[in-house]
Amino acid sequence: MLTRKLVAEGVGTALLLIGVVGSGIMAERLSPSDAGLQLFQNAAATAGVLYAVILMFGPVSGAHFNPAVTLADWALEGFPRRHIAPYIVAQVAGAVAGAVLANLMFDLDAVDWSSKDRSAGHLWLGEVIATAGLVALIFALVRTGRYRYAAGGVAAYIGGAYYFTSSTSFANPAVTVGRMFSDSFAGIEPSSAPMFIVMQIAGLVAAVALIRFMYPTGREREGASGER
Amino acid sequence: MLTRKLVAEGVGTALLLIGVVGSGIMAERLSPSDAGLQLFQNAAATAGVLYAVILMFGPVSGAHFNPAVTLADWALEGFPRRHIAPYIVAQVAGAVAGAVLANLMFDLDAVDWSSKDRSAGHLWLGEVIATAGLVALIFALVRTGRYRYAAGGVAAYIGGAYYFTSSTSFANPAVTVGRMFSDSFAGIEPSSAPMFIVMQIAGLVAAVALIRFMYPTGREREGASGER
Amino acid sequence: MLTRKLVAEGVGTALLLIGVVGSGIMAERLSPSDAGLQLFQNAAATAGVLYAVILMFGPVSGAHFNPAVTLADWALEGFPRRHIAPYIVAQVAGAVAGAVLANLMFDLDAVDWSSKDRSAGHLWLGEVIATAGLVALIFALVRTGRYRYAAGGVAAYIGGAYYFTSSTSFANPAVTVGRMFSDSFAGIEPSSAPMFIVMQIAGLVAAVALIRFMYPTGREREGASGER
Amino acid sequence: MLTRKLVAEGVGTALLLIGVVGSGIMAERLSPSDAGLQLFQNAAATAGVLYAVILMFGPVSGAHFNPAVTLADWALEGFPRRHIAPYIVAQVAGAVAGAVLANLMFDLDAVDWSSKDRSAGHLWLGEVIATAGLVALIFALVRTGRYRYAAGGVAAYIGGAYYFTSSTSFANPAVTVGRMFSDSFAGIEPSSAPMFIVMQIAGLVAAVALIRFMYPTGREREGASGER
Repeated sequence: MLTRKLVAEGVGTALLLIGVVGSGIMAERLSPSDAGLQLFQNAAATAGVLYAVILMFGPVSGAHFNPAVTLADWALEGFPRRHIAPYIVAQVAGAVAGAVLANLMFDLDAVDWSSKDRSAGHLWLGEVIATAGLVALIFALVRTGRYRYAAGGVAAYIGGAYYFTSSTSFANPAVTVGRMFSDSFAGIEPSSAPMFIVMQIAGLVAAVALIRFMYPTGREREGASGER
Repeated sequence: MLTRKLVAEGVGTALLLIGVVGSGIMAERLSPSDAGLQLFQNAAATAGVLYAVILMFGPVSGAHFNPAVTLADWALEGFPRRHIAPYIVAQVAGAVAGAVLANLMFDLDAVDWSSKDRSAGHLWLGEVIATAGLVALIFALVRTGRYRYAAGGVAAYIGGAYYFTSSTSFANPAVTVGRMFSDSFAGIEPSSAPMFIVMQIAGLVAAVALIRFMYPTGREREGASGER
Repeated sequence: MLTRKLVAEGVGTALLLIGVVGSGIMAERLSPSDAGLQLFQNAAATAGVLYAVILMFGPVSGAHFNPAVTLADWALEGFPRRHIAPYIVAQVAGAVAGAVLANLMFDLDAVDWSSKDRSAGHLWLGEVIATAGLVALIFALVRTGRYRYAAGGVAAYIGGAYYFTSSTSFANPAVTVGRMFSDSFAGIEPSSAPMFIVMQIAGLVAAVALIRFMYPTGREREGASGER
Repeated sequence: MLTRKLVAEGVGTALLLIGVVGSGIMAERLSPSDAGLQLFQNAAATAGVLYAVILMFGPVSGAHFNPAVTLADWALEGFPRRHIAPYIVAQVAGAVAGAVLANLMFDLDAVDWSSKDRSAGHLWLGEVIATAGLVALIFALVRTGRYRYAAGGVAAYIGGAYYFTSSTSFANPAVTVGRMFSDSFAGIEPSSAPMFIVMQIAGLVAAVALIRFMYPTGREREGASGER
């Protein structure tokens, strides 16, 4: 039933944004003097909520919460074309709702446009790498029958990628839109958002090509070393 | 045997409160100058103890340790009505015992009423969201035959939710009562507690409705993407 | 083959002590101004090494690395009495070797007796609780056929218990002896050690009683809620 | 198909280096005043990326990303001799590419030779222990049919070993080469690198001997205690 899937994508993406934006606000307030501590708290809380929401909604909608994942699922795994637009609408609506709820929970205005500039070539490179790695990870798992590791794998990857990419790994167009609505730690100025989304799509295209090369025939066996 | 289940709920909830209250005291003492570091240490230790106690007592009592979970189990999964009250009594008694033991372990008075005011509308919203997410996560796992992920999922969720909800996610009426007994980092003024519990019940009701919609028929198959 | 098991216990306990003592020295050096940060780094590194060494040697010796676990295994699971003494000797020898190696790795004297006083009633209570929880966790897993969770469970529990017990959870007589050999963050003054070990044995006795009550018949089924 | 394996080793090692070097730069910039916080952020992000890349490429190439693992696989598990050199070339090339990409992502010169001196006997001892533990862990899992724990085990081990070895556990000749290319937190002066690699090979030899003694016959059963 498509409605159920769309509710799952919407509620799940809302929870994800609550996690991303809310923990950013909390960290910024509690650790005002060390930006590294802020990002660390933000990254750990994001990993926690990702693990939980993927478990929570995976069996209903596949727990995409990310237009890049939905598009890759269509390109690689036959996700039905007619569901792409509804999925993306649900994800973006959920993302905005989540950011608004995070603002309200922390006693801020419901909508408070971010003024955090994130425009620079080296940040864009960060988004390409961040998204390519995320999408490649997910579909490496799907194509080898190891979807059960998706929650842990995505949480570990994004928790790490907050650090190892210069852009702190948005890696998700819906999350990018949602983050525009909060002028806090995790925010992004609306004018910086489109280029982030373009770079995320570039990363997605790279990941689809990599997965097609790496896992061409679908199911490969999990093996201990190169030869087996 | 009901007695065994009640001992499990009591001892487990006591250990959980030792985890929550004890690590709060330790963090407050060791990192007096950074509130974010305090919360982070508290969150990580809470996640650790949650993972352990759910593994420890799950096969005996279901490892609820939380009246909200017991009530949801009755509403969704046929947990016997006559066991609800004994479970809740065991959980609350365990929570108080755990807080007292934490106080004693850290050389404080056995009972030391918290003076930490936690009364504000935005914190109440935090408790609704925190509890709804926790209960929805647990019963999403139960209804899809994935209870084996409950320990990890709950630990990750609560560890994250200490940050992404403004109330630091009590999400548990028994824990709320227990935290009244320690005037330390994790405490709550008794006068702030009833409203927290009301909000937790509101979150539980929302989660039950969500689970009924999302997982109506009981067991759904774990799937890789939306269509399968 | 007993020799193989003893080597596993010795090498594994040595690695554990390298983890405990080494990360304590590193954290103390790198974060001199915040004791909470020191303990956090120590706790996280200890959790990491525990997870790894239990995976590494579990199939050979059961990965006890702890006389309290060996004794509980004898009391609860029929571990052969004649192997108790050799196991404990291997564990203690490994613990000392590990502490010495940690000292050498960090350019300290091979043996440098700790001068850290850890004598107080509330700390002793901490050791009782810490050890009881650890032993109860392990044998709850063993008795329900879920030993595969031991590495993760023990790592999460000890990582948390470094915080939620006032004694920072030694919970292991061999580790207690090993920690005497390094005058650094994780050390313990030799005169404080015997009482810690007495308290650990008290915790072990309590855990054995709890497990006999909770899991009397051996294998119980893993269940989602109290009734099933 | 060997090409596919080599691409997997190259891309995976590049991602690993992005993780190691990138998170080091980020941590250094964000937390300039506490070296412990820097290392902690670096260790956690490295653990996250390790977990992800082992999941991502394991079924294709075995996810070695480390000449020491490739050599041990040859010595212990019959990895084909003629594939050793191509694997190592792919790993080293990937490592260099990853370090360069990390530099670019953080707006530094593509190649910026490290000036961080890491030459001292106690650091060399650290590398022997770090590499021996890593290799022993991996092949303990392989020889007991538990390769599914490799991603989590390696991530936990390396995350911990950044702390408990004095050298912060490079434990990988390809990573050592890659780290030469960035004058940042995780870097190593080229003149310090050869001795690190020699020590890593010594650790590998020790691990191979240990595994041959511990797991002589290949598959051993996972057991709860020493006797079973």
